[in-house]
Amino acid sequence: MSDNRPIGVFDSGLGGLYATAHISHLMPRENIVYLGDTARVPYGTRSRETIIGYAEDDVRFLLSKDVKMILAACGTVSSVALDKIKESSPVPTFGIVEGAVESAMKATISGRVAVIGTDATIGSGVFEKMLYARGANFVISRACPLLVPLVECGFCGRDNVVASSVCRSYLEPIKEAGVDTLILGCTHFPILYDVISDILCGVSLIDTGRVAAETVARYILQSGSGADISRGDVRYYVTDSADGFSAAAKIFVGGKKICAETVEITK
Amino acid sequence: MSDNRPIGVFDSGLGGLYATAHISHLMPRENIVYLGDTARVPYGTRSRETIIGYAEDDVRFLLSKDVKMILAACGTVSSVALDKIKESSPVPTFGIVEGAVESAMKATISGRVAVIGTDATIGSGVFEKMLYARGANFVISRACPLLVPLVECGFCGRDNVVASSVCRSYLEPIKEAGVDTLILGCTHFPILYDVISDILCGVSLIDTGRVAAETVARYILQSGSGADISRGDVRYYVTDSADGFSAAAKIFVGGKKICAETVEITK
Repeated sequence: MSDNRPIGVFDSGLGGLYATAHISHLMPRENIVYLGDTARVPYGTRSRETIIGYAEDDVRFLLSKDVKMILAACGTVSSVALDKIKESSPVPTFGIVEGAVESAMKATISGRVAVIGTDATIGSGVFEKMLYARGANFVISRACPLLVPLVECGFCGRDNVVASSVCRSYLEPIKEAGVDTLILGCTHFPILYDVISDILCGVSLIDTGRVAAETVARYILQSGSGADISRGDVRYYVTDSADGFSAAAKIFVGGKKICAETVEITK
Repeated sequence: MSDNRPIGVFDSGLGGLYATAHISHLMPRENIVYLGDTARVPYGTRSRETIIGYAEDDVRFLLSKDVKMILAACGTVSSVALDKIKESSPVPTFGIVEGAVESAMKATISGRVAVIGTDATIGSGVFEKMLYARGANFVISRACPLLVPLVECGFCGRDNVVASSVCRSYLEPIKEAGVDTLILGCTHFPILYDVISDILCGVSLIDTGRVAAETVARYILQSGSGADISRGDVRYYVTDSADGFSAAAKIFVGGKKICAETVEITK
């Protein structure tokens, strides 16, 4: 039985666009509604209560668009608020943590795994707890709060001296800990994949954007709720002005030009 | 005639704490109410409409505390929303732009001046326009959006490699332009004074925090509205959780421990 309702994806800002691009790539028939809460990004430096309130606004907006499922393409919301939003969401609702942990446990040989994320994600201890529960021997986690604005301000790419300096500073203790796998526990971080990969040579990087897209694809296939149209489209919504969105968004969608509409999502 | 009502100061986040510390230092008899909109920081990457809405919330909160004047200790609000909030504020309301421009025009010998600020501040062109109106020969301005989160994440101090790398990247064109004066057009930036000063040797730096405190002191003296108490106190309010505020705030107030109360300021 097919289901032509859109998939709902949200993030604090633009990081989730990358996961959205992967969903489109894996499932080109699906319609997608994307919401970036650009008026209140970043979430990861805020308190648990504030993050939960913001995530509830995001979910309410997506539900108003009659989505068939929701992906919180945001490491912070997935770590801090997923249980809360699952409670209030009438459609299947996923985060990025579980898939990333599974991928990490498949990738690691030594069982020594690292996680980086926002302050709120690392503070929650969710990744750490789940990694140990799945058999990790050693987990080191590090909050890297500057990486979200770093990416949103366009500092990325292998040759970017600033990106390299910031990542090097955050990753030093992880390099010293001798892990073989690192979870990029925030959907902004895969944009820094090359920079991080150069610093941590030989370490497997778990790309949460790709893994989240695979989670969505698996659910759609298993539940038989795929769309029955020749080609789906993606509608983009943001909470701040849509001016300049296209330029900033390019980083996350491989240079493609996309346009967004501004919406009010607070009650 | 004395006036014991508090001075109201607000900023998007913590940058205004530095100006607040200077006001206390210059006028120890004054009571001060400080509001940091930490649930929605940073303002400088947001649209004009969003910034005006946020600034109006801030002003409404300070007015509820019966303040005798308001200082928008925020370069973004001062550049983008000052006219709007002046219209709706029944008490004298100041920003940081005018004082900073006056100081810059006193400091410059060549008449070649630079300004750095947030995206919104630089986009507004307010500093540039006022500098030319006061006789500058040449003005170069540069948006440095990463500097606010850089400071709020604690990357500062002369020996900080990350702070130095980020500042160097932003200041390169300013160094090449051969100015003799640079306005730090955001109240977060004076925290990077040493780093910037090392990069731009010999350039006079205009510290907007200090200048804003002097603006307030001058108004209080000229209007004869000083407080008549032996020692004023400062009450701190934030819009996100107050946990961790004290640690983050230390950077801005010379290591002093201060505590804040969380308030809801949206309508």
